[in-house]
Amino acid sequence: MSERAIGVFDSGVGGLTVLRELRIQIPDESLVYLGDTARVPYGTKSSPTVLRYAHEATRFLLTQQVKLLVVACNTASAVALADLTKCNQIAVVGVIEPGARRALEVTRNGRIGVVGTEGTIRSGAYERALRAGRPDVVVQAAACPLFVPLAEEGWAHHEVARLTAHEYLTPLLDRGIDTLVLGCTHYPLLKQMLQEVVGPDVQLVDSAQETAKAVAALLKEHHLLNQTTPAQPPRYFVTDIPDRFERVGGAFLGEKLQGVTTVSLEGN
Amino acid sequence: MSERAIGVFDSGVGGLTVLRELRIQIPDESLVYLGDTARVPYGTKSSPTVLRYAHEATRFLLTQQVKLLVVACNTASAVALADLTKCNQIAVVGVIEPGARRALEVTRNGRIGVVGTEGTIRSGAYERALRAGRPDVVVQAAACPLFVPLAEEGWAHHEVARLTAHEYLTPLLDRGIDTLVLGCTHYPLLKQMLQEVVGPDVQLVDSAQETAKAVAALLKEHHLLNQTTPAQPPRYFVTDIPDRFERVGGAFLGEKLQGVTTVSLEGN
Repeated sequence: MSERAIGVFDSGVGGLTVLRELRIQIPDESLVYLGDTARVPYGTKSSPTVLRYAHEATRFLLTQQVKLLVVACNTASAVALADLTKCNQIAVVGVIEPGARRALEVTRNGRIGVVGTEGTIRSGAYERALRAGRPDVVVQAAACPLFVPLAEEGWAHHEVARLTAHEYLTPLLDRGIDTLVLGCTHYPLLKQMLQEVVGPDVQLVDSAQETAKAVAALLKEHHLLNQTTPAQPPRYFVTDIPDRFERVGGAFLGEKLQGVTTVSLEGN
Repeated sequence: MSERAIGVFDSGVGGLTVLRELRIQIPDESLVYLGDTARVPYGTKSSPTVLRYAHEATRFLLTQQVKLLVVACNTASAVALADLTKCNQIAVVGVIEPGARRALEVTRNGRIGVVGTEGTIRSGAYERALRAGRPDVVVQAAACPLFVPLAEEGWAHHEVARLTAHEYLTPLLDRGIDTLVLGCTHYPLLKQMLQEVVGPDVQLVDSAQETAKAVAALLKEHHLLNQTTPAQPPRYFVTDIPDRFERVGGAFLGEKLQGVTTVSLEGN
């Protein structure tokens, strides 16, 4: 079992920031990535629709014999994690709980900001996860629909991105947050610019990094760390043709993307 | 036959700018609108995927007994119009040809700019339509992926939108265009701001307005204008739950959206 791959899925390229962290933190693990690029984004879609897509993605990754599933998409984690955990035999790790836990560790004043897609913010999942750990925490959440296209456009350091961040984040800063959770797997690409906008007194929490830490800890705890065979190169599956995924995804992965296969999930 | 509705489809809310123009220009016609909101946007997806979605949408609208089909989505028009026309008995009108024809009428120097989604621009459909009308025309095309989220965010007059427009349009203005085709049904919401950015010497072509004109002319020519029964209120169908469509769509339609029904297209 331990030599099996870890399955990672996202609506598109964003989850590659999580895959990148997994490769850094647990380099001996084989990884299978699925991006549902024919139906991306999930962030503006309803919960029942995202739930259906998440189940279809999971069924596909199970056919790849994965030992653990990472829902590397905040919207899908917010909407579908409990249901996916209940319905499947393998462990399922989302991106919300690890980020929330880290935010509670680093906040000094108990005022935590959360940024994400419309779907993630509307779900209230971060708020629930943060309050579950510390009921008196003050959570300031903001949906930032322009951050994803800005990251994909490669405009992370453009004045447009800076101005957009000011617009979205000023209300959160006005409420005195000292911690900001990047609640979308696209946002690590904007991290440096966001840190400049919020200033040095606000600590950013990168949910991709925290999720990779949680996966490593879980594998260790369950004696599932691969110690037998060398890690295979990551395998990538998408639901649309690979062109755009390969082109845009390289920036998220931090290296050239190769070996992408198209699969169909509909009706899976 | 003439009392039947006109079918209008788009990947999401954008096509409502076309529906709005149809209501202004041919108020006696009944209209059925389909927004494929579970799979929006089409602009970043591949041609085979968009083609499949367009056929599924068409099959649904045919079950609504429409007399004419308007593909109110530039990406779907670029990719699927010829195929939809070939495969169906009713007339099919796209948004590209009417906009291109108008641009050729208004340009004085033969230098025409086109803005649209990645999918529309990559398809080269406007370039082909413009060159078919006038082979020596110089076409400057630019994909503007941030315009759709800016329009949906309601930021048409925000400094971010203005700065983004400058970034995208400066290369086109530098090449001396005197006409700019708004090759995406979302862009009429940005029209005023775009006119300010390009200045009074550049004429904007609104493909939603031109498409409605083309539909009116075609119905008249084929004696299909409704002259018997009063027009029914528009019927709206979407593939995700209606919440976001109703909320965001109101701005595109110019009035409150009501009576939206969810349908499934997958496997249609």
